[in-house]
Amino acid sequence: MEDLITCVEEQPQPPSSLPNSWTNQHSDSAQRTDEEPKAVGGFVLVHAGAGYHSESKAKEYKHVCKRACQRAVERLRAGALAMEAVAAALVELEDSPFTNAGMGSNLNLSGEIECDASIMDGKSLHYGSVGAIRGIKNPVLVAHRLLSEAQKGKLSAGRIPPCFLVGRGAHDWAVAHGIPPCPAEKMATKFSLSAYKRNKRKMEIAEKMDTPENPMKRRRQSSETENGSECLDTVGAIVVDQEGNVASAVSSGGLAMKHPGRVGQAAHYGCGCWAQNSCNSNPYSTAVSTSGCGEHLIRTMLARECSVALQAEDAHQALLDAMQNQFISSPFLASEDRVLGGVIVLRCCRCEEDPPSQDLQASLVEFLWSHSTESMCVGYMSAQDSRAKTHISRLPPGAVPGHSLAIEGGVCRLTSGAQAGP
Amino acid sequence: MEDLITCVEEQPQPPSSLPNSWTNQHSDSAQRTDEEPKAVGGFVLVHAGAGYHSESKAKEYKHVCKRACQRAVERLRAGALAMEAVAAALVELEDSPFTNAGMGSNLNLSGEIECDASIMDGKSLHYGSVGAIRGIKNPVLVAHRLLSEAQKGKLSAGRIPPCFLVGRGAHDWAVAHGIPPCPAEKMATKFSLSAYKRNKRKMEIAEKMDTPENPMKRRRQSSETENGSECLDTVGAIVVDQEGNVASAVSSGGLAMKHPGRVGQAAHYGCGCWAQNSCNSNPYSTAVSTSGCGEHLIRTMLARECSVALQAEDAHQALLDAMQNQFISSPFLASEDRVLGGVIVLRCCRCEEDPPSQDLQASLVEFLWSHSTESMCVGYMSAQDSRAKTHISRLPPGAVPGHSLAIEGGVCRLTSGAQAGP
Repeated sequence: MEDLITCVEEQPQPPSSLPNSWTNQHSDSAQRTDEEPKAVGGFVLVHAGAGYHSESKAKEYKHVCKRACQRAVERLRAGALAMEAVAAALVELEDSPFTNAGMGSNLNLSGEIECDASIMDGKSLHYGSVGAIRGIKNPVLVAHRLLSEAQKGKLSAGRIPPCFLVGRGAHDWAVAHGIPPCPAEKMATKFSLSAYKRNKRKMEIAEKMDTPENPMKRRRQSSETENGSECLDTVGAIVVDQEGNVASAVSSGGLAMKHPGRVGQAAHYGCGCWAQNSCNSNPYSTAVSTSGCGEHLIRTMLARECSVALQAEDAHQALLDAMQNQFISSPFLASEDRVLGGVIVLRCCRCEEDPPSQDLQASLVEFLWSHSTESMCVGYMSAQDSRAKTHISRLPPGAVPGHSLAIEGGVCRLTSGAQAGP
Repeated sequence: MEDLITCVEEQPQPPSSLPNSWTNQHSDSAQRTDEEPKAVGGFVLVHAGAGYHSESKAKEYKHVCKRACQRAVERLRAGALAMEAVAAALVELEDSPFTNAGMGSNLNLSGEIECDASIMDGKSLHYGSVGAIRGIKNPVLVAHRLLSEAQKGKLSAGRIPPCFLVGRGAHDWAVAHGIPPCPAEKMATKFSLSAYKRNKRKMEIAEKMDTPENPMKRRRQSSETENGSECLDTVGAIVVDQEGNVASAVSSGGLAMKHPGRVGQAAHYGCGCWAQNSCNSNPYSTAVSTSGCGEHLIRTMLARECSVALQAEDAHQALLDAMQNQFISSPFLASEDRVLGGVIVLRCCRCEEDPPSQDLQASLVEFLWSHSTESMCVGYMSAQDSRAKTHISRLPPGAVPGHSLAIEGGVCRLTSGAQAGP
């Protein structure tokens, strides 16, 4: 294997009118060290959910994003492909008790944890997904394993391997494939249990208002559950590796107080995540991971729509248009009073002009996040960086969640190839 | 309510080169009776699965398609909208012991029946779906009820109603909403039980070949299970009602010997069914229902892709291109040795020219089916007809299942509006 070099360069971006701020603050080259350049390159962008992140817990949210970026970069530096790196980031996000995924997930109506997760490999275009799975600490590892098994080809007697398993069957498949079960009581946290009790009380009060004289009060009232403190959703990550392959993944405990068996966008093809390497018809490799209200993200197929949009020339404008027209103003959600969600996206293409040397190949990675929720916590890092950058993106003051958008992002230039001499 | 009149007229279609035959035989006006025209209009197209239909059972397959059409038309004549009519057709298809849906579904690896079903309303663009549900005779009724409940708006404490439920949770939700459970032993048939035993034996033989010296024999061998006699898949229906609303639905027992918890395209948004009324950007209302290998249909999002394609001028060419480029030659299925599936589609638009009278509005319904499986059984009927037409479409002699396509269809002209005098 050849030695490879990676560098990250600053690239200015056009300003955008408020309230959508395309901030150059995120397009600085990520922090350098005096270390020798690592042998391999790549870039990761993660999110710890679109929702509401309190200032008091901002440190924890940022910290988990940072660790998730570091895990992915460790894998990239070890020569792993994008899919392995993205799974490593997700495991870190799932293991945090502060995120609504894996450990510490929202409890459902019966007080149980049921998780959704999926992963997509932009190179093979394979996909793996689990829905409403119980008693597995890292649902993304089951999705990853489903994908890997499907790549091996058919099962005995010509049976097609599954790409999507749910419920008890998903759990049993996972255990049969060496993924250890986790007792339910170990997955709930003090925080998730107290949120469950709080939500249960709110529901009981709301249902008492549902008298025969006034049945509509039960429905259409203000969304207290969603506005509850620290209401978060699906976590996810997107990665481009040194070879330019992209991958994406998501994982979620789903909406608080959901009905048992409810599956959200995190397990839904085209809705939770999307990754697609460049090909004849698509000049850019794209990766997308979504977060927010699962039903809204399913019915708009937001991950895939964003990926398609990102083939346009101006990534920032394309994402803004997609979030506006295909999401918050989507005809598929015309009856919704507000549309809550967020995405992280990246696209990557080979730089044709100004190559650093004949032996090096340069790629331009454009990365963005956008959300209609009050806030979204993100982190990003290139394989060259010693530390991840993290950020809690918030809607501008006065903007209305579910109706307004925040959009920010940056650019990272990666070069990889034979190392240019000593 | 005004009196309405419906008529069906013949419209010739351009010939198509073999092996894809656009046959005029299906564009005759459906059989008339001497009865007075019914008060309401509409059209239904159903399928009893893409797969392999033996000549010896052709009569039964056609008969169930005929009954499904009649049920839908009965609802249309009673003034029901497309969504109710499509659900009525599906119940009939599910209740047949000959189809792989509801009663008589394929058994999974554990010898149990787990069903998938979904429904989409082109008017509201709402969607309901259940996956891996056990012990419910008519899964489509659960999907339908999920859709109806979601249309009522939020649940108590602002919770978003689910659009997709799986497994035990889906079963419990159904029962809580008045849909009766059905004992597992009543859903299996003599036919499905004997197919299970046959497949189990095949698997055991295949797995004995999986020696440490020759591990690859287990995989990549010829697909005996799929080629087994009477191997069928998802059933479905698409409807346009007198107001021009479209709806679609699918229901499936899934692949024989699937892993418990496996969910196929029949429960997957955009993959099993699609329905979308015309709007500013889409001149045609479209409805699609798919059948075949669930994993292939998921990864190509075939229902939605066909719907998008059908906005092109030539419906026949658009569907042929979509089936060729987005399905059997899809980059998403590049590693598959053969791609098995089928679709029924319809599109509908208002006829601008030559209105029968100023009081009548005419619509043109173009309907097609296409499949890469050996055969596909379809039926169709307008609300004016006294009997449905049925047909088992087969690949031309010499064509290779999974690589070749059959495509056929017809045209139906519907007029509805104030009745033009006595």
